[in-house]
Amino acid sequence: MREYLHGGDIYTQEIEMDYSANISPLGLPAGVKEAVVNNLDSFCVYPDSRCIKLREALAEHHQVKADHIICGNGSADLIFQLTEALKPEKALLTAPSFQEYEQALKAAGTKIRFCRLKEEQGFALDRKAWEEMLDDGIEMAFLCNPNNPTGIPILKEDVVHMAEECRKRGIFLAVDECFNEFLDEPEQYSVLKEEGEKDNVFILKAFTKLYAMAGFRLGYGICGNEDVLSAMEEKRQPWSVSGIAQAAGEAALRETAYVRQVRELAGRERKFLKHGLKQLGFQVFDSQANYIFFHVPDDGTGEDSLFYRLKKEKILIRSCGNYPGLENGYYRICVKDREKDQKLLAIMEKVRHKR
Amino acid sequence: MREYLHGGDIYTQEIEMDYSANISPLGLPAGVKEAVVNNLDSFCVYPDSRCIKLREALAEHHQVKADHIICGNGSADLIFQLTEALKPEKALLTAPSFQEYEQALKAAGTKIRFCRLKEEQGFALDRKAWEEMLDDGIEMAFLCNPNNPTGIPILKEDVVHMAEECRKRGIFLAVDECFNEFLDEPEQYSVLKEEGEKDNVFILKAFTKLYAMAGFRLGYGICGNEDVLSAMEEKRQPWSVSGIAQAAGEAALRETAYVRQVRELAGRERKFLKHGLKQLGFQVFDSQANYIFFHVPDDGTGEDSLFYRLKKEKILIRSCGNYPGLENGYYRICVKDREKDQKLLAIMEKVRHKR
Repeated sequence: MREYLHGGDIYTQEIEMDYSANISPLGLPAGVKEAVVNNLDSFCVYPDSRCIKLREALAEHHQVKADHIICGNGSADLIFQLTEALKPEKALLTAPSFQEYEQALKAAGTKIRFCRLKEEQGFALDRKAWEEMLDDGIEMAFLCNPNNPTGIPILKEDVVHMAEECRKRGIFLAVDECFNEFLDEPEQYSVLKEEGEKDNVFILKAFTKLYAMAGFRLGYGICGNEDVLSAMEEKRQPWSVSGIAQAAGEAALRETAYVRQVRELAGRERKFLKHGLKQLGFQVFDSQANYIFFHVPDDGTGEDSLFYRLKKEKILIRSCGNYPGLENGYYRICVKDREKDQKLLAIMEKVRHKR
Repeated sequence: MREYLHGGDIYTQEIEMDYSANISPLGLPAGVKEAVVNNLDSFCVYPDSRCIKLREALAEHHQVKADHIICGNGSADLIFQLTEALKPEKALLTAPSFQEYEQALKAAGTKIRFCRLKEEQGFALDRKAWEEMLDDGIEMAFLCNPNNPTGIPILKEDVVHMAEECRKRGIFLAVDECFNEFLDEPEQYSVLKEEGEKDNVFILKAFTKLYAMAGFRLGYGICGNEDVLSAMEEKRQPWSVSGIAQAAGEAALRETAYVRQVRELAGRERKFLKHGLKQLGFQVFDSQANYIFFHVPDDGTGEDSLFYRLKKEKILIRSCGNYPGLENGYYRICVKDREKDQKLLAIMEKVRHKR
């Protein structure tokens, strides 16, 4: 069985508070639940293999062409299809970053180079260093914006510049904006308008995090290169997006009040948790997302680590020791609500002083 | 956009009765609907990437090891993963058969040989002819039992013999038993007990058809070769099976009365429709499944064909002209209930005599 590298593993251990998976703390939007319940009987038939209605709703939502949208069984599904369709010889990733890029590239037989994000730069991307690496035979690159697990975003102007540098060299760039809406000012970072329909750019989006739809599996990509989209479709079954996910996705796009509420909550709790973690003596990096990345300077190993001490209290946090470029003692937690976040900090304080 | 080759396309045309997709006419089992509604709030979190509970329930249901089960986003998903994991140089298919085998093999770059099922043999498989073709450098073979679109099953003894012949030659055999439960006597045809945990055999199963869960996307495979299962997992995202599908699948396995009812209905309506189609002067082949394969001897082309005449009446049937080994005039319809099936035959009679 493939080793599980991510947060959210609440299935093999008894967990009361899962701080390891970065999904909206508000739970499923009411409209999404209604769409499932009201359409339940219709899910006995095969889903629309072309996701016509959902793609049209997304096209309207993002003001792009429906033909430039591809839906998938979660954004992770699209990552695998994209690498399989492009089969790049060599790809550039940042380290750390979301681990499925690496998994998908390995599955496609790609050689991987890492642009290391430096702690002394607060794990912010050094654009010039990244661009210099492009000349090393790179055929594809992934950018996660804001980055996961650090929560550090890259300004739109920088991404546009990087996409242009890729274009000059015939490099295909995938920009993962799955967490964009959690930022205080999403439009300062998203290149969807500028790059979404270019030939060499694929913008990755998901319903997973923003609408707490992780259990539904629904992601999508926006790309102006229809040959790439067709090649991805050739590599997969026709019905990769369930009928339930399609109906839920359409309903989610109407949840504008929910999105405002999530963003407000994320902003508020991000500040609260950052402050609280600093008070505990942890080194807190400047995440702008709905999760916070921090370092426990004198973290113990094994059962002595913060991870295990919290696990004994049935709290799961994301240990980032298995990310390339990181080591034990680095953690990521998501934001929840004030009550839970207070409880988390209180328990952290308790277990921290145990030794 | 990839050309859509299957039945069930009720999204780009106005259809009142869809006879083109072979799913249970009873709709979703009550227990499945309850499982979705009662667990709705839990689908905000990431699904169990290992499908532990569902695989354990399936292991119990089929009396096999849970480690020998892999779940997927519909059985079509597993077909693509299997061909991608094995990457055979050359594979053997029957013609006609389910078209995703060919699509998946093409995506994996495999050369395909076809063992033609002959009309004069009622489209029954000639085991010896099939086995003789194995020596032509074949590395993998697919068998669909009962076959789709013909509904003709292969006896268990024959499949066991064929699996053994494959084993001798180091050939990997995928046996698709997705429609097995619709047969009057499923156990005379299934090799799940005999071959399910062998090293060179992969048994494909789905919830799609039997439980009318096509919109959920849930299939599974049983295979004794854990290296093959691991290789499949390496080629895909961790969360390919949604939380909703996992909960629904567990609930479906408890629906034994539903399965009895479906099988009884399929048996009854199969006879009724076969008789009715023969009365209309069509050539009806001996399907044993929940769908019927027939030929319209003097079928017109284009708008004059039975397909288009029925489409004008908002009835969709599966034209099989795009299957390798078939041509226009061959059709497949599923069974529904007596009222609808009577209506279908009446409309067929009406449009048949129009010209």
